[in-house]
Amino acid sequence: MNILAIDTAGRSASAALLRDDAVLYETVCNCGLTHSETLMPMIDAALKTGGVRPDQLDLYAVTAGPGSFTGLRIGLAAVKGMALAAGTPCAGVSTLEALAWCHTGSGTVIAALDARRGQVYWAAFDLKTHARLTPDAAAPAAEAAAFAQSCKKPVFYVGDGAALCYNRDEQALPCPPALRVCRAAGAGLAGRALHLAGQSVPPAALTPNYLRLSQAERERAEREAAAQTGEK
Amino acid sequence: MNILAIDTAGRSASAALLRDDAVLYETVCNCGLTHSETLMPMIDAALKTGGVRPDQLDLYAVTAGPGSFTGLRIGLAAVKGMALAAGTPCAGVSTLEALAWCHTGSGTVIAALDARRGQVYWAAFDLKTHARLTPDAAAPAAEAAAFAQSCKKPVFYVGDGAALCYNRDEQALPCPPALRVCRAAGAGLAGRALHLAGQSVPPAALTPNYLRLSQAERERAEREAAAQTGEK
Repeated sequence: MNILAIDTAGRSASAALLRDDAVLYETVCNCGLTHSETLMPMIDAALKTGGVRPDQLDLYAVTAGPGSFTGLRIGLAAVKGMALAAGTPCAGVSTLEALAWCHTGSGTVIAALDARRGQVYWAAFDLKTHARLTPDAAAPAAEAAAFAQSCKKPVFYVGDGAALCYNRDEQALPCPPALRVCRAAGAGLAGRALHLAGQSVPPAALTPNYLRLSQAERERAEREAAAQTGEK
Repeated sequence: MNILAIDTAGRSASAALLRDDAVLYETVCNCGLTHSETLMPMIDAALKTGGVRPDQLDLYAVTAGPGSFTGLRIGLAAVKGMALAAGTPCAGVSTLEALAWCHTGSGTVIAALDARRGQVYWAAFDLKTHARLTPDAAAPAAEAAAFAQSCKKPVFYVGDGAALCYNRDEQALPCPPALRVCRAAGAGLAGRALHLAGQSVPPAALTPNYLRLSQAERERAEREAAAQTGEK
């Protein structure tokens, strides 16, 4: 099974070509460049180097959230466009689950993305089975750290929100920043697991999971709430 | 500190640009293509995308063995050539140590490369500190498996020889094939640690560590031994 996997949910962008559970080609770009500029060349290099044409892909895997609103739209739009041509199945995976699938071992991994405003998107996973221990949540980093401290097993943090969690938890195992980045191979492994469980979807059914209202929606809701209060 | 890290020791090839202990750009190619064809374009993409000129590099990190004789020569020759121009320091890292630095957590990681003839190059490392637990060795895969079974901590295998070890050890923690590949970020982290410990060298002093005689040298030694026996 040929899988094209991409991640554009956080600060870094990544594209990978997998054959079943092995990686043929993978690129991670964490230079602060715009995902809309780096993504398609990375996909092109993966397919060309791997010698796989888009119509030979059996699955697209993409991080569907949580993450940056613009980043998620870039990744989902690219996958929807490419998958539509051949009606290839798509797996929209949790960005936090993709991060967890980049690691293995014994204990717990907490994936955390910087959600701004002092918050992180976070979830905890078992390192051996990649089974989810907590749902994806938007919360202060201290909440993820409190969960880690309640864990009886060793814990480390990954993702671009890991530093925020480490600031609040000095007991956790270390994870060098170079290993905290989201690699598309993780999205590919998570997407493959979803597909094998019958949970992939047609391209049109792929939707983002923002987990939180956008700033514009939040401000509108606040304005409307204030107006309603004023009317009373 | 800007670090260019490469690995061409095994079946896959990889190039990465790091800034201190963070990765800016990384590519892994595991398509069975010739390293001499894929390496320089991967280095070029890493430097261009990362916006770093060769004269702005502070360190080259390269897997110096064990591994494929031809692969090691390709990687070392490329680094020696690039580093010579500006006299940039080089860190020749154990391929097995680079593999171990691709992972973190609690317990033990055994890095294993397929050494042909039923053997693996292998060594064990602590996952948290990346401290070496055994020296790099060329031995039957059963020897690595026996060490794993004597470990009191959880163990998993990485590297292109991991499958040979898993065949002999069903008790070990799983590691999906996509996570077993050697990523140049691991070589970069291992090389940075060597450099900070004052163990980087000028380009001319960079030497491979083949760990075992090449097939040609082995056959010559066998011929000479047979001839000496014949003379007696």
